[in-house]
Amino acid sequence: MNQLKGACIIGQSGGPTAVINASAQGVIQTALAQDCITRVLGAAHGIKGVLDDKLYDMSQENPAELDLLQYTPSSALGSCRYKLADPDVDDTDYKRILEIFQKYDVRYFFYNGGNDSMDTCNKISKYMQKMNYECRVMGVPKTIDNDLNGTDHCPGFASAAKYIATSCAEVWQDAHVYDTGMVTVIEIMGRHAGWLAGSAALASLTGCGPDLVYLPEVDFDMDQFLADVKRIYDATGKCMVAVSEGIHYADGTFVSEAKTSATDGFGHAQLGGLAAMLAEMIKDKTGAKVRGIELSLLQRCGSHVGSRTDIDEALLAGKAAVEAAVSGTTDKMVAFKCSRDGGTYVCETSLEPLDIVANIEKKVPREWINAAGNGIEQPFIDYVLPLIQGEPGNPKENSLPRFARLKKVLTTSM
Amino acid sequence: MNQLKGACIIGQSGGPTAVINASAQGVIQTALAQDCITRVLGAAHGIKGVLDDKLYDMSQENPAELDLLQYTPSSALGSCRYKLADPDVDDTDYKRILEIFQKYDVRYFFYNGGNDSMDTCNKISKYMQKMNYECRVMGVPKTIDNDLNGTDHCPGFASAAKYIATSCAEVWQDAHVYDTGMVTVIEIMGRHAGWLAGSAALASLTGCGPDLVYLPEVDFDMDQFLADVKRIYDATGKCMVAVSEGIHYADGTFVSEAKTSATDGFGHAQLGGLAAMLAEMIKDKTGAKVRGIELSLLQRCGSHVGSRTDIDEALLAGKAAVEAAVSGTTDKMVAFKCSRDGGTYVCETSLEPLDIVANIEKKVPREWINAAGNGIEQPFIDYVLPLIQGEPGNPKENSLPRFARLKKVLTTSM
Repeated sequence: MNQLKGACIIGQSGGPTAVINASAQGVIQTALAQDCITRVLGAAHGIKGVLDDKLYDMSQENPAELDLLQYTPSSALGSCRYKLADPDVDDTDYKRILEIFQKYDVRYFFYNGGNDSMDTCNKISKYMQKMNYECRVMGVPKTIDNDLNGTDHCPGFASAAKYIATSCAEVWQDAHVYDTGMVTVIEIMGRHAGWLAGSAALASLTGCGPDLVYLPEVDFDMDQFLADVKRIYDATGKCMVAVSEGIHYADGTFVSEAKTSATDGFGHAQLGGLAAMLAEMIKDKTGAKVRGIELSLLQRCGSHVGSRTDIDEALLAGKAAVEAAVSGTTDKMVAFKCSRDGGTYVCETSLEPLDIVANIEKKVPREWINAAGNGIEQPFIDYVLPLIQGEPGNPKENSLPRFARLKKVLTTSM
Repeated sequence: MNQLKGACIIGQSGGPTAVINASAQGVIQTALAQDCITRVLGAAHGIKGVLDDKLYDMSQENPAELDLLQYTPSSALGSCRYKLADPDVDDTDYKRILEIFQKYDVRYFFYNGGNDSMDTCNKISKYMQKMNYECRVMGVPKTIDNDLNGTDHCPGFASAAKYIATSCAEVWQDAHVYDTGMVTVIEIMGRHAGWLAGSAALASLTGCGPDLVYLPEVDFDMDQFLADVKRIYDATGKCMVAVSEGIHYADGTFVSEAKTSATDGFGHAQLGGLAAMLAEMIKDKTGAKVRGIELSLLQRCGSHVGSRTDIDEALLAGKAAVEAAVSGTTDKMVAFKCSRDGGTYVCETSLEPLDIVANIEKKVPREWINAAGNGIEQPFIDYVLPLIQGEPGNPKENSLPRFARLKKVLTTSM
């Protein structure tokens, strides 16, 4: 084994999820246990913390608090949306990163994020190689959108999917309480991929699912949409619709941004968002009482109804990244290879090249969406259902969530 | 004991809560166990089910499914918002109700709802007395708004409060993830009373609470509001605000409906609601990135994060109503008398006159709100905290909620 001694940095990047901190916990706890890793440093707000020399000494944290990271939504170390320049055009940031790495003798770099974060990882890794600075760089995936290429699924997705399915089932109960007409539109995150909006259909397993589901994988047709809703509403007096925020017309225009004559008077759509706009149009068309509900940030931080499977896999991804790096691996992203044969779900980690995610957004296969483009087929359910299993088991204080409380002691010296 | 033999009817009315079905379960199971109650009938959509002769035979239900009612949000029998006329003006409905009561020999009537439902109870009771038809009428309280007079608190409130506090704590984590500015406005139900909006402050017990809380008990001043937000935002780069949907100006105009010159351009506020409108105004004032989040129906049907205390008390209220009626009581509402002395919470039922709730909305005492009118004082926390304790313990199937599935067999004959 090619043993490399030195410090490690763990950074978190991009939008929060319910379990990105579980991955950080996996990295931190595994790294703290390695003889060859001399220090474990947490970067404040991702790569910005490296550039700003704002690094937390993770050995100062109470181990019991580190254990609570798996139950704590959002990024405990802080996140960023900082995009590194092409090093051939401007290598200022890279020089600075190398300087910090040298200052703390950083030989391991773990970056926890989505597409852009893997790109950051890749650029840093290539630069360090070019400069003959030995440093093992590993990506740990996360995104609620589940659009990362090269992995069966992505930590963070399943907990959001479970939040969405649970909330849809509950809202269905509420929206069916009167014997008067009611149409409910639920707006779900996912700008380009419909994994989350499709997960609303899981609510049907409780007997209380949406009647219609619209994903960005299928071009949206407003007339057809209104006809779909009217048909169900006329037949049953109720209709529950789940829509992805990313639904768009055939020309690529997002429905949420479109200001056609049909949507005139709704020019302030950015105020209330897509659900409110669609609800208003349905009201015009059917006369129904309507309610637009945007799940907003709630769906990506709802750790109280997270998936234990998701938490465990997020922990595993972090652990696997450290173990692989210590064993000599670099330049890889931890991914999942899963089998669902005969209804038995098995998930194992694999190591994929960092650029496997570049420029590819993994979308819902067209054949997992029904022909009419307004519902989900069984293979989608079979894919997602194993991922949402298990209660998070999150500890409470005063019957409210007990989140990790980190001291975040800044490193002041070597 | 004055034993009265005959059938009973249970009806649910008004807006759904997470635990109104627990009260129905308490009534149904207790009634089924009484020798003097010959049949237990569930009214479809409250008093409308009586008027329409749509009554379900509850003895046909699987007892295991009845047990699941306590975990099932919304009104399983169906609800209504039907207001009975003054019987001195128009007694058509009352004659019909008497006819149905006579048809099924109904001698017990339990009605589960808020202010209007207690009024319905009261009118029916008085009419039956006038017609010399012996029938014991009992009100079982529910409302998420907690504005019922004559009771320490109301079943349904605590579960909604717990949902709100949990969600606020999670959103706080999410909204603090970047080192860039961010203002979040969370809109909470409660048109005239601020019990729910105030409960957002419970999130502070997790270390992640709102910076500002606005209740309808205090007149709203837009300039002061924007100044409050700006002050906190300028100092910390973040601000999280919880507002009641019912905040209003000194002249009584709801902020959500006001179209002053200051809100021009936001005339479509009904589309996105109050949170979106306030967020947009804060953006104009501070330049901050903003996010308006409306908890909408989610907060009143979120049984997955309900309060076990609330469920137990809702069950108890239903049981107490039947036991009191069988013992000879009529014309009463079940209420709670609670003690919190020395931090020990004790809740007991009492029986109050049905008209105790008439024309009175119980509001948050002014002294439980801070002097500036933008936050909550400790007595409010001490009042609410015992009510949200305990996990609901709701069973799952596929890791999703397992709601009660009632057969709802219509009664076709005596």
